[in-house]
Amino acid sequence: MMKPLAVLGQAVNKNVIVELKGRREYRGVLDGYDPHMNVVLRNAEEYHEGKLTRRLGVVLVRGDNVIYISP
Amino acid sequence: MMKPLAVLGQAVNKNVIVELKGRREYRGVLDGYDPHMNVVLRNAEEYHEGKLTRRLGVVLVRGDNVIYISP
Amino acid sequence: MMKPLAVLGQAVNKNVIVELKGRREYRGVLDGYDPHMNVVLRNAEEYHEGKLTRRLGVVLVRGDNVIYISP
Amino acid sequence: MMKPLAVLGQAVNKNVIVELKGRREYRGVLDGYDPHMNVVLRNAEEYHEGKLTRRLGVVLVRGDNVIYISP
Amino acid sequence: MMKPLAVLGQAVNKNVIVELKGRREYRGVLDGYDPHMNVVLRNAEEYHEGKLTRRLGVVLVRGDNVIYISP
Amino acid sequence: MMKPLAVLGQAVNKNVIVELKGRREYRGVLDGYDPHMNVVLRNAEEYHEGKLTRRLGVVLVRGDNVIYISP
Amino acid sequence: MMKPLAVLGQAVNKNVIVELKGRREYRGVLDGYDPHMNVVLRNAEEYHEGKLTRRLGVVLVRGDNVIYISP
Repeated sequence: MMKPLAVLGQAVNKNVIVELKGRREYRGVLDGYDPHMNVVLRNAEEYHEGKLTRRLGVVLVRGDNVIYISP
Repeated sequence: MMKPLAVLGQAVNKNVIVELKGRREYRGVLDGYDPHMNVVLRNAEEYHEGKLTRRLGVVLVRGDNVIYISP
Repeated sequence: MMKPLAVLGQAVNKNVIVELKGRREYRGVLDGYDPHMNVVLRNAEEYHEGKLTRRLGVVLVRGDNVIYISP
Repeated sequence: MMKPLAVLGQAVNKNVIVELKGRREYRGVLDGYDPHMNVVLRNAEEYHEGKLTRRLGVVLVRGDNVIYISP
Repeated sequence: MMKPLAVLGQAVNKNVIVELKGRREYRGVLDGYDPHMNVVLRNAEEYHEGKLTRRLGVVLVRGDNVIYISP
Repeated sequence: MMKPLAVLGQAVNKNVIVELKGRREYRGVLDGYDPHMNVVLRNAEEYHEGKLTRRLGVVLVRGDNVIYISP
Repeated sequence: MMKPLAVLGQAVNKNVIVELKGRREYRGVLDGYDPHMNVVLRNAEEYHEGKLTRRLGVVLVRGDNVIYISP
């Protein structure tokens, strides 16, 4: 069995999809995370309703709004 | 009597349905979970309003949005 | 006086109605519960806006969304 | 001065109105409560938008959704 | 400087307005309160969208939904 | 670096804007605050969607609904 | 690996974007932060749905509503 946060540990320095409420999605390289599922992405892209809406060099995404994170 | 989280313990390596708020559903093989109902699924499929919308190799679904989990 | 969770203790192995936000209702035999009002039902049926929408052998319903539980 | 939960202590075995979010109201005899404002009612009636919608012999109403409780 | 809850301590036995989310307002004499801003009012009146909708002899209003309390 | 709550400490006895969810705004002299961002204002004015809707001598505004506070 | 809050530590005295729920955005120089993601900005600008709506000399933005913070 795998502890959920271990998935994040294995995904550091790899591309991840972070899906948030409100049809927002952030894609980038996982730089860090904490037990609240706050995550840091670099080379990040924001998508809203499937469209690329913003590029963000580094972004700290708050864990509260996360629906899922997928490596 | 069965403690609720024991249902998840018995479902590891089996197919589960994870129903979330917002008419989202994730189906896949349960790889792990924690007491917040954060779950890890592999070979996962996302359904939105009953339609298959995405395939995700591995996905960490945040427990906050869970309505139910069914093995 | 009866402590609220004691109602659940007495309802184990009996039929219960679990009413959730969003006009969802789960009916089945109570298998277990915890202090967060997470409950396990077996032989469960889901109703949405009063219509039977799904049958679930075993289901773990998250306590967060509960409006009421009635034995 | 009266501590808020003391109001519930004095209302045990008396009729109370439990008003919830979403224009739901439960009326019945208060059987028990806890510090989260979870309450148990017996001979309970559910009203939705002012109309009687269900009778429930015993019901455990989750405190999270309470707007007010009035003896 | 005044600690916020001290405002409530000074308002006991005086008229207060308790404004809640959803355009609900409760007016009455403050009988008690606790650190969660749960309050007890006596001789209370409920207003919804500015109209008097109910009179309640004693009411325990849950602090969660409070926007403000004004003596 | 300034700790967020220190901004409030420096603003005591000065005019502040307290912006809440739901397009509500409270303006007045800051009388007190606590770590939950509950604040007490005196000589307060309520604005809704930019219009002055009420004057409140003293008001305890619950921190939960705060978007920002600006001295 | 980088701990999420460390991103904020490195951004002190630099320009940041603070994106909130409800299509609100605050831009300014980061003066401080705490583990709840409450942040203090100076020379701040508020944008709503992409339009500049207010200038705020100093503003304490509550962490609860944060979607992301980007240096």
